Amino acid sequence: MKKWIIHNFCAIVMASQKHTYANRLVGSENNVWVEFTKLASEPGVLNLGQGFPDFKAPEHVVKSLQQVIASENPFLQQYTRSFGHPRLIQALAKLFSPFLKRNIDAFTEILLSVGAYGSLFCIIQGLVNPGDEASAVIIIEPYFDCYEPMVRTAGGTPVFVPLRPSKKGVISSSGDWKLDPIELESKFSSKTKLIIINTPNNPLGKVFTQQELELIAELCKKFDVVCVADEVYEWMTYPGYKHLKIATLPGMWERTITVGSAGKMFSVTGWKLGWSIGPENLLFGPKLVHQNCVYTCPTPLQEALAVAIETEEERLGAADCYLNSLALELLPKRDRLAQVLESLGMHPVVPEAGYFMLADISKMNIDLPDDGKDEPKDFKFVRWMIREKKLAGIPPSAFFCSEHKIMGKDYVRFCFIKKDSTLAKAADILQNWKAEMNPK
Amino acid sequence: MKKWIIHNFCAIVMASQKHTYANRLVGSENNVWVEFTKLASEPGVLNLGQGFPDFKAPEHVVKSLQQVIASENPFLQQYTRSFGHPRLIQALAKLFSPFLKRNIDAFTEILLSVGAYGSLFCIIQGLVNPGDEASAVIIIEPYFDCYEPMVRTAGGTPVFVPLRPSKKGVISSSGDWKLDPIELESKFSSKTKLIIINTPNNPLGKVFTQQELELIAELCKKFDVVCVADEVYEWMTYPGYKHLKIATLPGMWERTITVGSAGKMFSVTGWKLGWSIGPENLLFGPKLVHQNCVYTCPTPLQEALAVAIETEEERLGAADCYLNSLALELLPKRDRLAQVLESLGMHPVVPEAGYFMLADISKMNIDLPDDGKDEPKDFKFVRWMIREKKLAGIPPSAFFCSEHKIMGKDYVRFCFIKKDSTLAKAADILQNWKAEMNPK
Repeated sequence: MKKWIIHNFCAIVMASQKHTYANRLVGSENNVWVEFTKLASEPGVLNLGQGFPDFKAPEHVVKSLQQVIASENPFLQQYTRSFGHPRLIQALAKLFSPFLKRNIDAFTEILLSVGAYGSLFCIIQGLVNPGDEASAVIIIEPYFDCYEPMVRTAGGTPVFVPLRPSKKGVISSSGDWKLDPIELESKFSSKTKLIIINTPNNPLGKVFTQQELELIAELCKKFDVVCVADEVYEWMTYPGYKHLKIATLPGMWERTITVGSAGKMFSVTGWKLGWSIGPENLLFGPKLVHQNCVYTCPTPLQEALAVAIETEEERLGAADCYLNSLALELLPKRDRLAQVLESLGMHPVVPEAGYFMLADISKMNIDLPDDGKDEPKDFKFVRWMIREKKLAGIPPSAFFCSEHKIMGKDYVRFCFIKKDSTLAKAADILQNWKAEMNPK
Repeated sequence: MKKWIIHNFCAIVMASQKHTYANRLVGSENNVWVEFTKLASEPGVLNLGQGFPDFKAPEHVVKSLQQVIASENPFLQQYTRSFGHPRLIQALAKLFSPFLKRNIDAFTEILLSVGAYGSLFCIIQGLVNPGDEASAVIIIEPYFDCYEPMVRTAGGTPVFVPLRPSKKGVISSSGDWKLDPIELESKFSSKTKLIIINTPNNPLGKVFTQQELELIAELCKKFDVVCVADEVYEWMTYPGYKHLKIATLPGMWERTITVGSAGKMFSVTGWKLGWSIGPENLLFGPKLVHQNCVYTCPTPLQEALAVAIETEEERLGAADCYLNSLALELLPKRDRLAQVLESLGMHPVVPEAGYFMLADISKMNIDLPDDGKDEPKDFKFVRWMIREKKLAGIPPSAFFCSEHKIMGKDYVRFCFIKKDSTLAKAADILQNWKAEMNPK
């Protein structure tokens, strides 16, 4: 029996049933990044899609890697400790202990993974059982899209709770998207194993408020639920907002795994290093998964990251500390992009944190070609925008479950951690577009 | 209800049932590398355990990474293509096409992973179903120990077939361990999905013969089985032996995934880059797993590896080609270690390839302390040797299934990809030990 599969518009024939991919992967075939990263890499396309900077990483971070490579120590090119390079986990423990308000034990309470992405995979595979009596995983929408296939391939049951616009009409700040406490509580049950929160949130840019986090914490305690706090954008919180770690709320350390990312911290997404911090018993399963799937992460990058964190840790709070300065560097980029989008009629949802901005496309009267696909409008819009305007974004309905995709269909996500010259080019594209729409 | 777990002698209490690790991981708690790497890192211990060099990586490989880091191109620090950095997969396709006797399509027939370890994980998770009608995976023993937990956590059923000493008494060459054709065929059935072969083999160092590979190929075709060929030690085949790729046998390309490793190729195990090469339909599942668990591998290391492979590819066959010279560099190290072990009465099984050597400890009359553990003798012996002799190896019964551990209990695995000075220190330890055993 032959089985045909469609993957990002490429049909592959399976030679025999035995050559077919595993059932756990059915439904995970399509991936917004694989498709839109490919489209965005076409010649002449300006890429405000996938989240990564197009400017250089901080000088001391690059220099730390140069020094590692130049080192006479041959062991820096060889395997290191499975669960994290000793120097790096110790640097992380020192950096995060004050933020987590406790002394983190580097060797038992940290797991170093292949990016925060790898951390999330290890946590979900390490804790969620298929068809278990407690296999439900609450995911707050919009969510980083990988949460859903990660939960499904682990055999868990995702339960979605959307942030909802808290007022009618035009929404101007990511903070206007709010959790409905009654709706949230209704999703918790004795079957709930995990809740995954992402604060600051991608793609919205919302920083969860203390009140919201306290509500989540109370529900976690009431229903004995483990909280996964994906906090990779914590260092990019704009003035006036404060990132709060749910692990620091009373009774929450023992039921929270906090996820962080070197790529986001130091603008080096290509280093693919991330971490999980939490109590030893909760990290036990994720460590087994890590040990089983990659065993260890690259040593030279871990050593260099350790040096970079040690440097930052010494100047925490100072003006030259990248962990403080990045948000200030991003702020004018955010405001500029918001202004240009507004002028075109793509009303922006200005983020409180992070480097993504949703723009409302509902007022854009574009005659999108019918490509015969049963897809939300934003997918068609972004494909059209890439083709016709040579500008790439990401369709945010990818960050909602199938039932709620309608909540994302009227937006495009733009990434603004880009050089000013790149953002100027984007502004040119948008202004020319505006001129075409409103011919004088 | 509380659940206690024992992990490498460290007991952890799970706060509640809901905090317990996923069932798929039960049975994978212990890992020989986690325990013995930790023991080997104690001060003063000479480490011939885990397989990595203690000498510097080839100069041009390190230099290629230095150049990448020094580059003005900011994109080399950012995310790259999920399934492999374009320059790297193209370099791999060019290098391997002649060896695989076909034109490899870089963009569809290669998947870049976090080490060959990550490649194996993606392949097994991508193809094996739990409780499937075809979930059996044949593993030839001794095997790289991760195969077994990888198959079990995917829900597959490992079916073990040992290589067996082909003659009574003392075995002197890894090639004397052979497959029993009748036994092998008896393990194939309609339920067999995969066979995993490791040639050259770790820990034995055996290079599978053409006859053995042809037999495996015939059985794969007869029973419609996919072959995973872990060939990471291919570049370290000693004079007189020839590594043959099973994917090049008639009718085998379409049912084989060949796994390779940059760490083994260039003595940079800490770079953690590996690859799967095979037909697009077989790589479909592994790609989905990769996309779901790490998404992409580190960009600077991939770019540097691409440059290094391009350099080697141009001088393939020449004396300064590392892919040719490494085996010649290792040969005297192998012979020296064999001679020293022999003189102590630890009869060596001299490998045909790779950088591991089994040594027979059955004649060593050591009074091993009873630590109360129900473990094979080699585990007790290696722990004793580390503590008393400050010399670390790996107990090879870890490379056999529980039923067959008895086949490994009388050996220790030593790694000899070490500086001559390190091997000289090992020789000193062994010679002193001999002197103590035979006082004049």
